[in-house]
Amino acid sequence: MSESPIKFELLHIDKYTGARRGRITTRHGVIETPVFMPVGTNATVKGITNDQLNEIGTEIILSNAFHLYLRPGLEVLDYYKGLHNFMNWKKPILTDSGGFQVFSLPNKKFSEDGIIFKSPLDGLEIELTPEKSLNIQNVIGSDIAMVLDVCVNSLSSYETVKESVQKTFNWALRSREYHNNKNQALFGIVQGGLYEDLREISLKQITSLDFDGYAMGGLAVGEKYQDSEKVLKAFGNKFPENKPRYIMGIGSPTMMFLSVENGMDMFDCVLPTRMGRHGTALTMQGKLNLKSSKVRYDDQPIDDECDCYTCKNHSRGYIHHLFKRDEMLGKILLSIHNLRFNISLVEKMRNAIEIDEFKYFKEEFFRNSGYSLTN
Amino acid sequence: MSESPIKFELLHIDKYTGARRGRITTRHGVIETPVFMPVGTNATVKGITNDQLNEIGTEIILSNAFHLYLRPGLEVLDYYKGLHNFMNWKKPILTDSGGFQVFSLPNKKFSEDGIIFKSPLDGLEIELTPEKSLNIQNVIGSDIAMVLDVCVNSLSSYETVKESVQKTFNWALRSREYHNNKNQALFGIVQGGLYEDLREISLKQITSLDFDGYAMGGLAVGEKYQDSEKVLKAFGNKFPENKPRYIMGIGSPTMMFLSVENGMDMFDCVLPTRMGRHGTALTMQGKLNLKSSKVRYDDQPIDDECDCYTCKNHSRGYIHHLFKRDEMLGKILLSIHNLRFNISLVEKMRNAIEIDEFKYFKEEFFRNSGYSLTN
Ligand SMILES: [Zn+2]
Ligand SMILES: [Zn+2]
Repeated sequence: MSESPIKFELLHIDKYTGARRGRITTRHGVIETPVFMPVGTNATVKGITNDQLNEIGTEIILSNAFHLYLRPGLEVLDYYKGLHNFMNWKKPILTDSGGFQVFSLPNKKFSEDGIIFKSPLDGLEIELTPEKSLNIQNVIGSDIAMVLDVCVNSLSSYETVKESVQKTFNWALRSREYHNNKNQALFGIVQGGLYEDLREISLKQITSLDFDGYAMGGLAVGEKYQDSEKVLKAFGNKFPENKPRYIMGIGSPTMMFLSVENGMDMFDCVLPTRMGRHGTALTMQGKLNLKSSKVRYDDQPIDDECDCYTCKNHSRGYIHHLFKRDEMLGKILLSIHNLRFNISLVEKMRNAIEIDEFKYFKEEFFRNSGYSLTN
Repeated sequence: MSESPIKFELLHIDKYTGARRGRITTRHGVIETPVFMPVGTNATVKGITNDQLNEIGTEIILSNAFHLYLRPGLEVLDYYKGLHNFMNWKKPILTDSGGFQVFSLPNKKFSEDGIIFKSPLDGLEIELTPEKSLNIQNVIGSDIAMVLDVCVNSLSSYETVKESVQKTFNWALRSREYHNNKNQALFGIVQGGLYEDLREISLKQITSLDFDGYAMGGLAVGEKYQDSEKVLKAFGNKFPENKPRYIMGIGSPTMMFLSVENGMDMFDCVLPTRMGRHGTALTMQGKLNLKSSKVRYDDQPIDDECDCYTCKNHSRGYIHHLFKRDEMLGKILLSIHNLRFNISLVEKMRNAIEIDEFKYFKEEFFRNSGYSLTN
């Protein structure tokens, strides 16, 4: 067992829940956990400058091997000595392996070594293998790479999910074997859909391999809240205690609370920026539609407790006007606020965990906010 | 003659040209001249936050009575106590009267008191009069309001331009009479197209009225460089010396040099942001197309002498990638750079004027840059 390129410290476990307070140290800086990771698919968090990302408290961003491989492509990323340098982002980066994106495409098929798909850019056939995904992530130079896994629809048949678990393990073995970038951590991914016995198997298989962290994949892909809750409750705290735990694709307040409560440390989601671009603000009172004429004469900030640039400087009515005129600045301001909302919510969770009040904080949040506890 | 809401100080006149170094003091702060004013048509400089505007050295922005009247509308602007408060911009604002916009529309016609046009938003007929334009600008609360003038195509017949000059004077008289906002300066506008005798008449008529500043209208509307040069050389320095001189719609390096050389103090243009959104950068070496694959592997900043956020942080190749992926951040970064380019160029002109080296600075600029001296 070689030394991990990252260090994980478990600082505290909440007395009454499985919520954890931790710290990940990487070559590009420290990440306090739980942590929300803004998504920068195409080497940019949409509409947000690095300065703005820093100002809202971003500690790590997520980017996508799949998208970066298509554009700008490996030659460019190699020329620029990796993604940090290319986009001038100085803090940690985690990269997705491409599994989720490829399995979302139509017309993909398994090859002997991996999976073949048609490029959404030019229609050409591309093969992605566990090794190739690692090669891509190696060129990207992310601080944390993910293994290529097999993602199936959570409504898939038992047989389909069982096969995906087997292949995911096989690919994880090959990835663990192949990976040899001493500056890059590698996380394994647990699959198994909504089948408890398959989750159990996948968890045992993946955690039998010495990864630097472990992810819960295949949740938040359209299943009911109750179903993800069942899986998280049953397995969240069965993940190795001494390693970071990452649940992929999570970003709503409801799912963040559920994930943290069940021992998860890291999550990412495009939701805050996507909703922001479409005119919806996340607030402590629930979602707020800034396109609605109800806020035309509303001179209050989106959230008067929020410390973001948008809330310190602009009113709901002004942002409403920007959306009515389809002005870029509306999308920018709302993306800033929504990212800060998620990051600040997670910061509050950290504080609550430290004083064993996570349960109380969660109850209070759902009592006072417009969010449903169960969706 | 009542006291002007703004104070203009003529600090220095270049020894060898008509270039002036001045200072305008307003209730919202000081403007050093010559000054380039970024355009915030819809109560926002497209894609740029107020913080970013401040960072690039913006001293005053221009907004449009015409657009703001249509949206958000006067009720909203009145509710928010004016545009400064609505968009939270703390420095000076100049507003266009709406003349240029209305005369650019199809199907407008003169009414007894003003001009009737169809709203580009809903097709309803709207009448704009000199008094109504001032009412709108009064609600907006700009530091400098412009009179409603009659803009005609610079290729119009002598008879048409002659009539426009007469009506412009008539409207200017009514505007001077009607305006009674002690906190708002009012500028008159000289018309006359490319006909020297009509320019002469308009200049005499408009400057016979006691405005707080005087603008040159009807140039940079598609005519040849040589034609605008003729007008500027003949009339620029005939404008009253003790008042700010504003040439409307000017923003290319070539036209800024020409205008300053002939005694103009203020100008505005959408060019830097519009070009930025379309992938073109203004640099000291000329225009640079960031969409071109030539810069794919170019790890240099747009302009290594530029002190803007974009140039301090990002490469041409990264911005190229953002445009290839149609990412908002590309437009934002390029708009920031282009605005800074114009503002910084004008700052350099000020320095040159102060030491009587404007002529030398201009020659040097055109010798070393890719800009044509005559277009
Ligand atoms: Zn906010
Ligand atoms: Zn620059």
